[in-house]
Amino acid sequence: MLTFKEYAQEVNKCLENIITEAPEDSYIEGEMPGLLTRSMRYSLLAPGKRLRPSMFLAAVDMLGGDWLDSVEFACSIEMIHCYSLIHDDLPGMDNDTMRRGRPTNHVVYGVGQAILAGDGLLNYAFENMLKWAVAHENKSVQTLHAIREIAIGAGVSGMIGGQVVDLMCENSAVVNADALSYIHRDKTACMFRYPLRAAGYIAGANPETIEALGIYGECFGRLFQATDDILDVIGDTAQVGETLGKDAEQGKLTAVSLYGLEGAKEIVTRLTNEGITALNCFGKDADIFRDLLVSMENRSK
Amino acid sequence: MLTFKEYAQEVNKCLENIITEAPEDSYIEGEMPGLLTRSMRYSLLAPGKRLRPSMFLAAVDMLGGDWLDSVEFACSIEMIHCYSLIHDDLPGMDNDTMRRGRPTNHVVYGVGQAILAGDGLLNYAFENMLKWAVAHENKSVQTLHAIREIAIGAGVSGMIGGQVVDLMCENSAVVNADALSYIHRDKTACMFRYPLRAAGYIAGANPETIEALGIYGECFGRLFQATDDILDVIGDTAQVGETLGKDAEQGKLTAVSLYGLEGAKEIVTRLTNEGITALNCFGKDADIFRDLLVSMENRSK
Repeated sequence: MLTFKEYAQEVNKCLENIITEAPEDSYIEGEMPGLLTRSMRYSLLAPGKRLRPSMFLAAVDMLGGDWLDSVEFACSIEMIHCYSLIHDDLPGMDNDTMRRGRPTNHVVYGVGQAILAGDGLLNYAFENMLKWAVAHENKSVQTLHAIREIAIGAGVSGMIGGQVVDLMCENSAVVNADALSYIHRDKTACMFRYPLRAAGYIAGANPETIEALGIYGECFGRLFQATDDILDVIGDTAQVGETLGKDAEQGKLTAVSLYGLEGAKEIVTRLTNEGITALNCFGKDADIFRDLLVSMENRSK
Repeated sequence: MLTFKEYAQEVNKCLENIITEAPEDSYIEGEMPGLLTRSMRYSLLAPGKRLRPSMFLAAVDMLGGDWLDSVEFACSIEMIHCYSLIHDDLPGMDNDTMRRGRPTNHVVYGVGQAILAGDGLLNYAFENMLKWAVAHENKSVQTLHAIREIAIGAGVSGMIGGQVVDLMCENSAVVNADALSYIHRDKTACMFRYPLRAAGYIAGANPETIEALGIYGECFGRLFQATDDILDVIGDTAQVGETLGKDAEQGKLTAVSLYGLEGAKEIVTRLTNEGITALNCFGKDADIFRDLLVSMENRSK
């Protein structure tokens, strides 16, 4: 197995070629308009850790699947993550003008084109997975299940649902544990849980394995968000998230705002233990996933 | 075979149940937030002709497929159409406050929630098709192809691509036949062409049949848009589109603005003939599709 950084390098190589840049004013029937290729690439190729697709590939690899053959599929996971950031930054949402050290998509391309760039990346994520699936017709049932897992994780009972509640809470006085748990699970953890389950299907794993991967993914995702909430306040310069100091400023509902700093740290420790327990069935092969949990926990200390 | 109105009634029945309404302030992990169910239903259940899913079902039926079993799949086509309208109406896009006689989604739910309602409907369209596909595992290759066709039609080289060029042209002085053709094909015709091709896959049709359906769909879609452009100007009260008088007001690039009224009518006649020619291979079974073309042509006279 490789390191997450090495998987991420393969993802980056593939992302570079997955959308071909065309002149900004070009439009040829049956092809993407040049402006759209540029606005999608602008956000998709911005530097990032590629954590979600890398974890997906590591899981395929751990289960004995052909991870290198799955890199193109993995890129769709990053596209979905990327579209959610573009839409999240829009004036009607978080209204952010900077992301990953660059002006946000709508600052560069305008609000209308940024909405379409986000829509384009979400739709293209599915188009790309389906293209991959058609090229792997001999395992069409597995790939159908895998794509469905991605759709669930990204969807109305997953990431989008979490964003709806996040936005609801921002505009109201809702401050309770249920809302926080919903946001942490749906908005953040679902895009770890379900891609890892998809990796199980791609690798042809059994239902128990898929379930264990999903539990780990949910623990990791919740921990990722709780750590982000903590670093947002304690201001670690090696932050995991991209929202340093911003959530607190915006008065968002976070693990720290609800439970205090120590309470949030206790949550991180509990999630680390739960995640490690879920990995038991994989033995030594899962060390990469254990180490990731522990390193994340350490950062929040 | 039924009439388009009768297929549409089945679509409406199914749409009514495809998203379960929950209290506006509810959020239960693993379920859609109540607010999201309401904002999606608000637009999805607004009265409409359900033309795209009805044509899809008629094609499945014409080819001897199980159309009634495909209604749930067809609902995803309407969801994609609906999401595109919600996003199209946003302030950063067309900035419309009324649609189908009701305030637009963002007027009622706010811009942020309207963006998420649109994202939700697009993602749920795929989730719903994939759920259907998993329940029809015995024809998983066909359904993979069918869903891929929908993704292509809705996508970056299809509907979204067309919207990008439409928005580009609005903000610039681009007025030429290539741009108009791109917009008519990609923005409008692709969501007829590719769902009809998908119907071919669902019904297990051969490649020639799928190709013929696609050509008909593209002719119909281009004609639909050209007719919309004409009615936008001549103001027929039984208009096909929902943008009566608006495109002209907004100074949009249309068939009439580029070719004049008579030129646009000539295009409609040419597309009617081309569409009817594409149907030759289906004989009498395709009368419903022929009649639809002719009735559309008559409206523009």
